[in-house]
Amino acid sequence: MRDDRENGLATIDMDGVREVGRELSNWGRWGDEDERGTLNLLTQAKVREATATVRRGASFSLSMPADEHGPHDIRTSGRFNPIHTMTRYRGDMPKGQVLDVCSSEDMLILGTHSTTHFDALAHVWYDDLLYNGFHHDTAVTAWGAERCSIQNLVPGVVSRGILVDVPRHLGVDYLAPGTRITPDILDSVLDEARITVSEGDILLLRTGTYPHHRRGADVGLSGSPGLTWECARWIRGHGIAAVCADNLAVEVLGANPGGPMIPFHMLALRDMGLLMGEMFDFEDLAEDCAADGVYECMFVACPLNIPGGVGSPLNPIAVK
Amino acid sequence: MRDDRENGLATIDMDGVREVGRELSNWGRWGDEDERGTLNLLTQAKVREATATVRRGASFSLSMPADEHGPHDIRTSGRFNPIHTMTRYRGDMPKGQVLDVCSSEDMLILGTHSTTHFDALAHVWYDDLLYNGFHHDTAVTAWGAERCSIQNLVPGVVSRGILVDVPRHLGVDYLAPGTRITPDILDSVLDEARITVSEGDILLLRTGTYPHHRRGADVGLSGSPGLTWECARWIRGHGIAAVCADNLAVEVLGANPGGPMIPFHMLALRDMGLLMGEMFDFEDLAEDCAADGVYECMFVACPLNIPGGVGSPLNPIAVK
Amino acid sequence: MRDDRENGLATIDMDGVREVGRELSNWGRWGDEDERGTLNLLTQAKVREATATVRRGASFSLSMPADEHGPHDIRTSGRFNPIHTMTRYRGDMPKGQVLDVCSSEDMLILGTHSTTHFDALAHVWYDDLLYNGFHHDTAVTAWGAERCSIQNLVPGVVSRGILVDVPRHLGVDYLAPGTRITPDILDSVLDEARITVSEGDILLLRTGTYPHHRRGADVGLSGSPGLTWECARWIRGHGIAAVCADNLAVEVLGANPGGPMIPFHMLALRDMGLLMGEMFDFEDLAEDCAADGVYECMFVACPLNIPGGVGSPLNPIAVK
Amino acid sequence: MRDDRENGLATIDMDGVREVGRELSNWGRWGDEDERGTLNLLTQAKVREATATVRRGASFSLSMPADEHGPHDIRTSGRFNPIHTMTRYRGDMPKGQVLDVCSSEDMLILGTHSTTHFDALAHVWYDDLLYNGFHHDTAVTAWGAERCSIQNLVPGVVSRGILVDVPRHLGVDYLAPGTRITPDILDSVLDEARITVSEGDILLLRTGTYPHHRRGADVGLSGSPGLTWECARWIRGHGIAAVCADNLAVEVLGANPGGPMIPFHMLALRDMGLLMGEMFDFEDLAEDCAADGVYECMFVACPLNIPGGVGSPLNPIAVK
Repeated sequence: MRDDRENGLATIDMDGVREVGRELSNWGRWGDEDERGTLNLLTQAKVREATATVRRGASFSLSMPADEHGPHDIRTSGRFNPIHTMTRYRGDMPKGQVLDVCSSEDMLILGTHSTTHFDALAHVWYDDLLYNGFHHDTAVTAWGAERCSIQNLVPGVVSRGILVDVPRHLGVDYLAPGTRITPDILDSVLDEARITVSEGDILLLRTGTYPHHRRGADVGLSGSPGLTWECARWIRGHGIAAVCADNLAVEVLGANPGGPMIPFHMLALRDMGLLMGEMFDFEDLAEDCAADGVYECMFVACPLNIPGGVGSPLNPIAVK
Repeated sequence: MRDDRENGLATIDMDGVREVGRELSNWGRWGDEDERGTLNLLTQAKVREATATVRRGASFSLSMPADEHGPHDIRTSGRFNPIHTMTRYRGDMPKGQVLDVCSSEDMLILGTHSTTHFDALAHVWYDDLLYNGFHHDTAVTAWGAERCSIQNLVPGVVSRGILVDVPRHLGVDYLAPGTRITPDILDSVLDEARITVSEGDILLLRTGTYPHHRRGADVGLSGSPGLTWECARWIRGHGIAAVCADNLAVEVLGANPGGPMIPFHMLALRDMGLLMGEMFDFEDLAEDCAADGVYECMFVACPLNIPGGVGSPLNPIAVK
Repeated sequence: MRDDRENGLATIDMDGVREVGRELSNWGRWGDEDERGTLNLLTQAKVREATATVRRGASFSLSMPADEHGPHDIRTSGRFNPIHTMTRYRGDMPKGQVLDVCSSEDMLILGTHSTTHFDALAHVWYDDLLYNGFHHDTAVTAWGAERCSIQNLVPGVVSRGILVDVPRHLGVDYLAPGTRITPDILDSVLDEARITVSEGDILLLRTGTYPHHRRGADVGLSGSPGLTWECARWIRGHGIAAVCADNLAVEVLGANPGGPMIPFHMLALRDMGLLMGEMFDFEDLAEDCAADGVYECMFVACPLNIPGGVGSPLNPIAVK
Repeated sequence: MRDDRENGLATIDMDGVREVGRELSNWGRWGDEDERGTLNLLTQAKVREATATVRRGASFSLSMPADEHGPHDIRTSGRFNPIHTMTRYRGDMPKGQVLDVCSSEDMLILGTHSTTHFDALAHVWYDDLLYNGFHHDTAVTAWGAERCSIQNLVPGVVSRGILVDVPRHLGVDYLAPGTRITPDILDSVLDEARITVSEGDILLLRTGTYPHHRRGADVGLSGSPGLTWECARWIRGHGIAAVCADNLAVEVLGANPGGPMIPFHMLALRDMGLLMGEMFDFEDLAEDCAADGVYECMFVACPLNIPGGVGSPLNPIAVK
């Protein structure tokens, strides 16, 4: 592993990813056929713990609108923002139907990663092997993910959610492009919020990036702030079941020059089997948490039931 | 109102719909600008009541797969089954990217009512006026629902869910085509399940129709079993917040000859502002309820955040 | 009609459009049920005349690529560039097919006006009436254009095409944003090219706008150069059957302050029933015409056979 | 090669395909970088010959409607029929635009092989190599066909077309499922039509299958009648540039038990580089040819300009 501490930054090359990957690996931990990874930490006891966090009954959406105002540009990123179109409106009915009823219909065209979403474990890997050692030639084919698809999440993701509000901790509206969130920062934010992490918790990582992008701020998408790869070790150590963030990729982008672009993804999805959620919106929840000082919630997110899907659009909620 | 009791059936004509509609109307009940209808019954106290129903922490998906095996045929119904396609697989990356990472991507094309879904209140109405009196010329236009869109549900639907397992009550696998579920049957099923309905509850109506359609049974889609229009009165009287069913349309189809095709929709969505969910799958939940005799659950469903949407695909869950 | 000759420009208001529309009207000219408009000028004799223009047998595509690099941005124009995606590649076959054969498949998602295309006459109108007086409430509904759809063009558009190369005439690579092409300019270009227009000819209007936009030039899309509304009179007088241009809208944009945005469209499609083609690419053809001094060709364009379509993507060709 | 002449049928196995493929190969014939195959036979002289066939100036569309009534069922064939939807109609304009103009818009979602279409040479191959020896790992990838894409046809396909009206020759409306069109039958039909084939001609093969499918006939799609693989040799010998048919696959389906499903495709697209068109409609043209006894025409077909496309929807025309 190359560990380049100039400027205090730890970059990592492919050999480093492989080495850390072996260290943090969950392969085989829940059996050779396991496709659920850290979802296995969501025990029934954990679900009960989650419901016990609900004191008021207040619910918050954690999604951004699934519309054309997202961050994608197909010419540069290969992804397009969701397309929603009405196909009938103003009460117009299909041809030949003269009815007393009026109705309307609409349609969605979207990549499963184009708005607030979960990554399936079959979304990112390296060296031809997915989480738990499945080979991509048979696991992710033209007709979908045979292994590690989003259908493994269909019973829903219910757990204790913990808001990690980094910009509020640092006294800013949103993190500057390129900001690296290190394990130290995570500890420091949680310490201020008086949260003790327990196994199966879900980290709700606020950077402010996308919500402020939608509000017109120039947030520097290509240098989106986020976790450093070293947080993978922190997450593994704390038994976190999922990390959801309001940026493009959970991890910081453009911060590993000379090495892989997204080392955290590689470690998290492939070696750890860690559930990842992206492009969330924590603005309303964060306001509420700052107001009452309670940074935990019941987190519920239910990806669509897409056979073979490698991701799913999502409207996660936090209930306090 | 024409009330044709031949064969014991109560058919209803347009004048009848209008008269019953006025009787059951919730227009103005939550203010002139209200677009949420019976969602207003989901108070914070009700959310807390819902979490209190969770005893074990077991979670059940209530969705059918969002795939091409649904019941739609665009040639006859104007709707098509969801289309899911991989756009990258086996680790192939976009053009020009020589990377250490492998990834995959996929895409969905679907009508918002084409698989398990909620109807927005802007989905069905009559006499040019939507729920709460909004006129369709300004409320549901080419660029989406300005009023009563699915975005009103974005904070999520969390309440006590009650499984009404009609086929199990009747000792069959699934209801025969044309079976009319009347208020009497609802009372009888709930009585057997020892459930007392309270305001804000969500009715989970099992007919067995779609799950058995997917398993190859000839369930007679055009005569899909379901609620009679008279159940609208029952639902209003019991303060039900939503009705979700595992058939095409909640209500029985083909059972109101000479009158409107979907009188329950007209009364429910337009006059009562009642939330409706369709094409659910209660098979796993029903097994569990039959086994432990507990027919209540925490119901959570979070439609996608679609500005102007008149429905949303959905993966609802029940937690017991 | 307000005729504001300040700066030598003739602007036109709605009353002016109506007055000129009556003057140029082709309503009833080919019968009360006619939906083909100036396509009626494409007689069999004209088709033979077109084939007689072919001297060498050289063929030129007049289309731009149907891809994501077009000029649209759904956030501002409501249109998106075509989406093309592979669904199978590298020889991968559908699930369960173990075959000796390899194959690939792909998919297109596109608005019918999003790349090189013809407008159907049902695309633009005013005062609720389409070409030949069809009312839009019955002519253009949720299930497509009942009247004046693109299917009226399905036998194909074959005629003599005449290249009007305005930038070459003016000695520039492409016209500056806002350039108004007036009848005088049309006469002058045709005069230089020694072309005498005859009834049924198709005008191929080169501005250089889109081809240079694709090559990275800042061509000022919102002020796209093109025909002034007065050219409608010139076109009617010369018996032109269609105008195809390599800009967004055939006509100049942003040049009628205080009046309708697209007065030429209104007169052409609605009053004259004139076929219009947009977003063409004449670069190769123009090179050839400049080289051999021959500005006529056999023009062939065959819109897709879309029932109810109000436009069609297109790959028109010129054969010399 | 296994040559099973039981029942007078010649079946072919993979070794046979390889052997015949070598015999009929056009690899290298037009250079090592050639991606156009038999399109190279469409010389400028051939284009002039095509225009000379136009005597009357009568034009015929050879396409079926691109709509939901096609033969596909995504559940069995992996393909869906084209989806066309209005997105604005009755003159409704985008949000916030209060304009004097009325307009409408629509959208298409379709596989490039789902209605009348051309196959690109990159559509079918075997043994990992496409036409002219390009390897599929670099030639047909997630971002489209780098080699042998439909863009090679963008200048248009113009040649002499010859209608081979098999059902009329046999005195039936359409061919029975499973009917094998052999070289002998081709000779016999052409002989009756008094047509002498010349190099670069395009064969328009009428079976009546799809047009009658659309009219409700049970044409036996899985046993679609068409060419036997032996016709590949006949086509190579006659210098045919393209074969277009009104069935699913040009070739007969279900007629090579124990061997590859589509041997003609394998020989034609991969070894010969032969252009193939499918799902045409020759009904109107055939009526006209039967009436005047002239079975030749100017054939023009212009696939869309789709970078990387492996096929294209099409509205070909015949002009007589």
